[in-house]
Amino acid sequence: MTSRVLLDHGSGGRASQRLIADLFLKYFGNPVLDQLDDAACISMPGEVAVSTDTFTVDPLFFPGGDIGSLAIHGTVNDVAMLGANPKYLTVACILEEGLSLECLEQIVLSMSRSAEKAGVKIVTGDTKVVPKGAVDKIFINTTGLGIIGKRPFPQGHRANEGDAVLINGPVGDHGLTVLTCREGLSFETPVKSDSAPLNGLLLQLIEDIPDIHVLRDPTRGGLATTLNEIADQSQKSCLINEDALAISPEVREGCSLLGLDPLYLANEGKFVSILPEEWAHKALEIMRNHEFGRQAKLIGRIGVDNPGRVTLKTAIGGYRILNMLEGEQLPRIC
Amino acid sequence: MTSRVLLDHGSGGRASQRLIADLFLKYFGNPVLDQLDDAACISMPGEVAVSTDTFTVDPLFFPGGDIGSLAIHGTVNDVAMLGANPKYLTVACILEEGLSLECLEQIVLSMSRSAEKAGVKIVTGDTKVVPKGAVDKIFINTTGLGIIGKRPFPQGHRANEGDAVLINGPVGDHGLTVLTCREGLSFETPVKSDSAPLNGLLLQLIEDIPDIHVLRDPTRGGLATTLNEIADQSQKSCLINEDALAISPEVREGCSLLGLDPLYLANEGKFVSILPEEWAHKALEIMRNHEFGRQAKLIGRIGVDNPGRVTLKTAIGGYRILNMLEGEQLPRIC
Repeated sequence: MTSRVLLDHGSGGRASQRLIADLFLKYFGNPVLDQLDDAACISMPGEVAVSTDTFTVDPLFFPGGDIGSLAIHGTVNDVAMLGANPKYLTVACILEEGLSLECLEQIVLSMSRSAEKAGVKIVTGDTKVVPKGAVDKIFINTTGLGIIGKRPFPQGHRANEGDAVLINGPVGDHGLTVLTCREGLSFETPVKSDSAPLNGLLLQLIEDIPDIHVLRDPTRGGLATTLNEIADQSQKSCLINEDALAISPEVREGCSLLGLDPLYLANEGKFVSILPEEWAHKALEIMRNHEFGRQAKLIGRIGVDNPGRVTLKTAIGGYRILNMLEGEQLPRIC
Repeated sequence: MTSRVLLDHGSGGRASQRLIADLFLKYFGNPVLDQLDDAACISMPGEVAVSTDTFTVDPLFFPGGDIGSLAIHGTVNDVAMLGANPKYLTVACILEEGLSLECLEQIVLSMSRSAEKAGVKIVTGDTKVVPKGAVDKIFINTTGLGIIGKRPFPQGHRANEGDAVLINGPVGDHGLTVLTCREGLSFETPVKSDSAPLNGLLLQLIEDIPDIHVLRDPTRGGLATTLNEIADQSQKSCLINEDALAISPEVREGCSLLGLDPLYLANEGKFVSILPEEWAHKALEIMRNHEFGRQAKLIGRIGVDNPGRVTLKTAIGGYRILNMLEGEQLPRIC
C-alpha cells in the first residue's frame, strides 16, 4: 500500500479492491461482509429499529475516543434508545485525497474494536475518495439496525405526569473535551470524552423495568435540548434539580472559564430515561451496577403544567427556564 | 428561513428543528419519519437486503438528474441487485455552511420525487452542517432496506458456465454526462445521464425468471470493472461481443474526443443480469417491454477457461482482455 489515500482508492477498480481487502475486510471481516455484493443479506425477524448518523468530528482523535469509536457508539446508542438490540451496522466513509493510510487504519481499527465491544457486526459499506479540499480528512456515516423487543417501546411522546427523569452520569464531558482539544486548551485536570456503547446497560434496564416511557441520548444540543425535545413531543413539562445533576469538577472549571453551559454540551455516553416513579429506585440500582452508570441520578420529574417547558430548579432555590439550544454552540462535535 | 445554510442548522437545537420541519418533513414526511425519535421503527419480516452509499457527485445538477435523484436511485438499485424489494431508506446529509437553501430545497424535492417513483419511504435521517470549506456543498448518504423474496438470490459468485450475459441498454451515458457538464464541454448531440430506479423492472424479472444467477449495476468503474468483479467472485470467465454492445452515438463521439473508454464509464440506470441461456430470450422480452430496458441486449457468455478473465471480441474479430479499472478515471462521478 502507498502511505496516503489516493483518488484511485475510490475508483471502484483494482485500487479500491485492495484498500477494501487490506483494510476494511481485514478489520471488519465477517461472513456477511465478505460476500462483497451490492447489498448484504441479513435476517431481521419482526420489528426493526433503524438509525443513521454522519460523524464529522474535528479533531479526529481526542481523549476518550476518536471519530471511529464515536461513529460506532453514536449509532449503536441511537438504535438502543428505541429499546432495541443493535445487531448490524453499515459503514460509509468519505476520504480526502492525501489522508494518511496510517491514520485511516487507526480509525478502522478503533471502529472494529468498538463494534466488537458493542456486539454489532458491520455488514456492508461504501468508500468514496474526493479530491483534496472537497472534504476535511474523513467523514463517516453509520446506519444501524436493531431488533425491537418489548412493546410499547420507549418514545419521546410517552413521557407521563409524575414520571421520574434519570441520567446515567455527569454531563458535558464529550463537548468540552472536543472543544479543548481543538483549541489546544488545557486544564489542571484533563477532561475525557464519555463516548461509550450503551446498549448493554439499556438491554438490562429494558428487561428488568416493565415499561420505560422514554430513552434518549443527549448528544448535540446537550441535556437541555434533549429534555426540550421530549417536553415538546409529549406536551408535558419537565422540572430538573440542579442539585441532583452531576457535573465533573473539570467540566465545571472549563465551562466557567469558556463561558459555556454544560447543560448544552454534547454527551456521547449518556442517556436520559423517563419512567414511572415507582421503578426509579430499581432503575438506578441497575445503572449503578454497570460500568457506564456508576454515577446515575434521579434528576427531575415530568409534570403537566406549561406543556413543552423545561425548568431548572437552581442550587439556591430559584427557577430558570431551560430553552432549547437556539443556534450552534460548537460545530463538528460529533 | 434565511436563504443560506448556517452552522446553526446543524446544532441539534431549534434552528435544526426548523430546517427539518420546513424542508425534510415537508417533502419526505410519512408516519414513521414524523415520529422524530432517535431511531425509526419499521417492520421487516424475514430476510433483509441492506446497502449503503454516499453520493459526492460534482456538479450537483446535470442533464438527466442531480445528486438527490442519484442518491435515491443508487441505493434503491443496489438493494434490488440482491433480488430484493426496496422498501425503506435513511438519508444523511452533510451540508456546507453557506449552501443556498434554494439549492438544498431543489435537491430534497428531487429526492422526494425519486423516492415516490421508486416506491420507497424515507424513515429516518440526519443532517450535519460543517464550516465553509470542510465539505464541498453537499454530500448525501442513503442506506436502503429491502425484502428478499426468492431463494437462492442473485450473487456475484453464482455466475455459471454457459450463462447468458444481458444488459438493459447502452453504456457510458452517466459518466460522460457528468464529465462534460463539469468541464463545460458540449457535443453536437447532448448527452444525458441514464440515472433511473431499476427495482420495478427487476422485480418483474425476478418473478418471471426461475433463477437469475447474478444481478449487478455497472456504476463506478463501468461495465468492464463490474464484469471483472463477477468473473473474480465466480472464478469463471466472461466473453463479451463488442458488436452486441449498445453505445449511443453521442457517447461514442464524446469518448473518442476525450480518449475515454465507454466500457469503463459509470452508469446509473443499467444492470447486468447473468442467467441460464434458456431464459435469455424471455428476460430480454421482459426488459424490452419496460421503459428502462427498451434497448436490452444479450452481450456475452460465461465460460470456464481462464477463471477471472473478461475478454472482448472486437467488431473486427480480434480479442482484447478487459482488465478491471486500475485507478481513477473520473472522481466524484456518483
